[in-house]
Amino acid sequence: MAAEFEMGQLMIILTVLFILAFSASAVFKRFGIPGLIGEILIGVLVATQIGDWSLMEALGIIRPVPGDPGTGNAYWDAIEILAQLGVVFLLFTVGLETKVRELTSVGRTALLVAILGVILPFVAGYAVIMMWDGNVYHAMFMGAAMVATSVGITAQVIKDLNLMSAPESRIIIGAAVIDDVLGLIVLTMVAGTARTGGVDIVNVTEIIVIASLFVILLILFCAKGVPRIAERIKASTEKKGSNGKERKLKGILFPISIIVCLALSAIAAEIGLAMIVGAFLAGMIFADHAHEYGLIKKMNAITLFLLPFFFVYVGLHIDTTSFTSELLVLAAVIIILAMITKYIGCGLGIVIGDRERKSSAHIVGIGMIPRGEVGIIVATLGVAITVGGTSAMSADLFAVVVMMSVVTTIIAPFMFSRVFRKKYGKGPVA
Amino acid sequence: MAAEFEMGQLMIILTVLFILAFSASAVFKRFGIPGLIGEILIGVLVATQIGDWSLMEALGIIRPVPGDPGTGNAYWDAIEILAQLGVVFLLFTVGLETKVRELTSVGRTALLVAILGVILPFVAGYAVIMMWDGNVYHAMFMGAAMVATSVGITAQVIKDLNLMSAPESRIIIGAAVIDDVLGLIVLTMVAGTARTGGVDIVNVTEIIVIASLFVILLILFCAKGVPRIAERIKASTEKKGSNGKERKLKGILFPISIIVCLALSAIAAEIGLAMIVGAFLAGMIFADHAHEYGLIKKMNAITLFLLPFFFVYVGLHIDTTSFTSELLVLAAVIIILAMITKYIGCGLGIVIGDRERKSSAHIVGIGMIPRGEVGIIVATLGVAITVGGTSAMSADLFAVVVMMSVVTTIIAPFMFSRVFRKKYGKGPVA
Repeated sequence: MAAEFEMGQLMIILTVLFILAFSASAVFKRFGIPGLIGEILIGVLVATQIGDWSLMEALGIIRPVPGDPGTGNAYWDAIEILAQLGVVFLLFTVGLETKVRELTSVGRTALLVAILGVILPFVAGYAVIMMWDGNVYHAMFMGAAMVATSVGITAQVIKDLNLMSAPESRIIIGAAVIDDVLGLIVLTMVAGTARTGGVDIVNVTEIIVIASLFVILLILFCAKGVPRIAERIKASTEKKGSNGKERKLKGILFPISIIVCLALSAIAAEIGLAMIVGAFLAGMIFADHAHEYGLIKKMNAITLFLLPFFFVYVGLHIDTTSFTSELLVLAAVIIILAMITKYIGCGLGIVIGDRERKSSAHIVGIGMIPRGEVGIIVATLGVAITVGGTSAMSADLFAVVVMMSVVTTIIAPFMFSRVFRKKYGKGPVA
Repeated sequence: MAAEFEMGQLMIILTVLFILAFSASAVFKRFGIPGLIGEILIGVLVATQIGDWSLMEALGIIRPVPGDPGTGNAYWDAIEILAQLGVVFLLFTVGLETKVRELTSVGRTALLVAILGVILPFVAGYAVIMMWDGNVYHAMFMGAAMVATSVGITAQVIKDLNLMSAPESRIIIGAAVIDDVLGLIVLTMVAGTARTGGVDIVNVTEIIVIASLFVILLILFCAKGVPRIAERIKASTEKKGSNGKERKLKGILFPISIIVCLALSAIAAEIGLAMIVGAFLAGMIFADHAHEYGLIKKMNAITLFLLPFFFVYVGLHIDTTSFTSELLVLAAVIIILAMITKYIGCGLGIVIGDRERKSSAHIVGIGMIPRGEVGIIVATLGVAITVGGTSAMSADLFAVVVMMSVVTTIIAPFMFSRVFRKKYGKGPVA
């Protein structure tokens, strides 16, 4: 693959994608639609086959065949790298804007939202595929793919609307983090069953312990450790009685925060969690001092460059050549169920968990709908696992998962920004 | 290659490299040495074989064999992508801080500096290799590799010292741009001779015309076109009598400037120029309004993340396994000549071109010494071209070029920051 890699060609690709994404986003925003929808649609458009031609192929980008990653090329990898860094830094910025107290105050509700929002979609996906082809592995992987919420999409809409401090925003972010831990547990059980024919209790317990420890310890560190460290630094700065140390801290805090973000994202990925969970928790570590030290403005500059590639990248996964009318019907059923079950599951979590916030059920339910890239990653794993000579996830069903991921990711922000703006208007929430 | 690519593994690599680069840079700065030297040395250290082990291999990074790019892996590509984007955005920022009038006012001097700074190193490289192995193609490519100045290195030192507006800085930047055009012409002639046995006059003329047109037209556009466009925008903003349009411009100018930077870098690469020449000229388009619209601060945030990977990447090219004592002697001779000829050539340009600025000859001469990645790119091309069954550049000589590039890039900033600070102190120049 590296043989074909030319930096000049990559620059052309990045230029074309960035121009298209920026233009589409600007047009959509003008009509009051979240810009990221335009960016995802650009990805779909670039990937669409028109006869034998597609802009993606013309640019020299080759999408890997699911289950056979060696078939993609270096330009696909390059876009993926920028895309993933973009969404990692986005969630890091969301973390920077989330005080740990705000998150723990909605903890119980978020937990309920996450649990119900995982169970319902899994059951629905499992049931539909059992009726479709009766293959239990296919059914399990479809269920697992429908579990995942990609908080990146909703987070961007929340940031655009300047509503990070609304209670619904905090519940969504908290639930999405828990959702990812639950999704990992589901995926481990499903993959284990497909590989060995049964659930390895030791293995699953290990993953539950490690993933939960990672999240809980970091939240504890944000709540207890960080204030103490900050106080100590402050005391030592004041003792010296000079501004020099303060200025120095201002210079190094940004690179240090990037290091923490990269490191926790890498650790999250090693554990099996989404990188964005690590990035979000990393951001929360610096949340109390992010404004003071200008971290958010600096991160916004970085994501402005990187993030459009993420949304385009999501859209690029749509392979129009795999469409058949039968498959489109199944996809429509799955898409509708993916939306309804997540909406009802998460909404129910609010209604049960916090009667006073019943009015938020609608907003949170919609905010948890987008599956983004996480569903696609689950399905890719399914394609890669073979059970009795065939993949645990067929190529057809993979295409359905991609459609489900992309369509929920396009539709949800549109609805979400409407209901959210309806409740709060456009300005920031106190 | 893509088969081996794992985003989680890449995050680990990026985390380790960023931490090492940041720490080394901080330590070096504490001792008054430019931080980028520390970052390059980290690259060398990571690549160094200790017995059978190197950190680079332990991290899973595989460097391509010169002339056979298919042998590198996706992680090498990933670092290259971030590195190249980093240096592109650095030169874009340098462009943002360079007013076109400042550049054209030193134009004649810069031209002389560039021309003499190209001729002397080429002749020296050619002569040494003719004495070494008598192979005329080896000699020509060594000469061409010694021509290139990588302005990225010096630019970073100038930015660190806050001396962008010193006359020497402008001469160096201007000469580096012209140097790149001249280097392209030399390379075209050398590669043409190796491929076909003679210089294709039509081809060389075409390249001279296109490359010169690209640079001259963009400079003209900066000098004449941009002020007119800015005036028209200003007039239309004032007519409407509202701040809305101004605020809107503030929001979109940054993404638009990124688009122009990416596009001109891509075009420069297509022409055969270094991408950083396109990026620099792109920056100059926005120079008159860069401060007002906060473009420089935003770009600084992006380069803070990306640029360390560039300096590490330069260092990663050193392959310690190729060292033999004979080769090290040749490398020492080439390195000394590369530094002396560039220093004398460029310094002479100042002395002849502008008698009043004789005192600047020393500073400019040193500032043009670093070869950075450009020399390596030239040598790579030489390895890829075969003449009568063998490469136009041997693997041994390639190793020498890499050593020359890395060592000049490490030594020059050290000397440069000393002489520059000696003349101006540490503060900004009026």
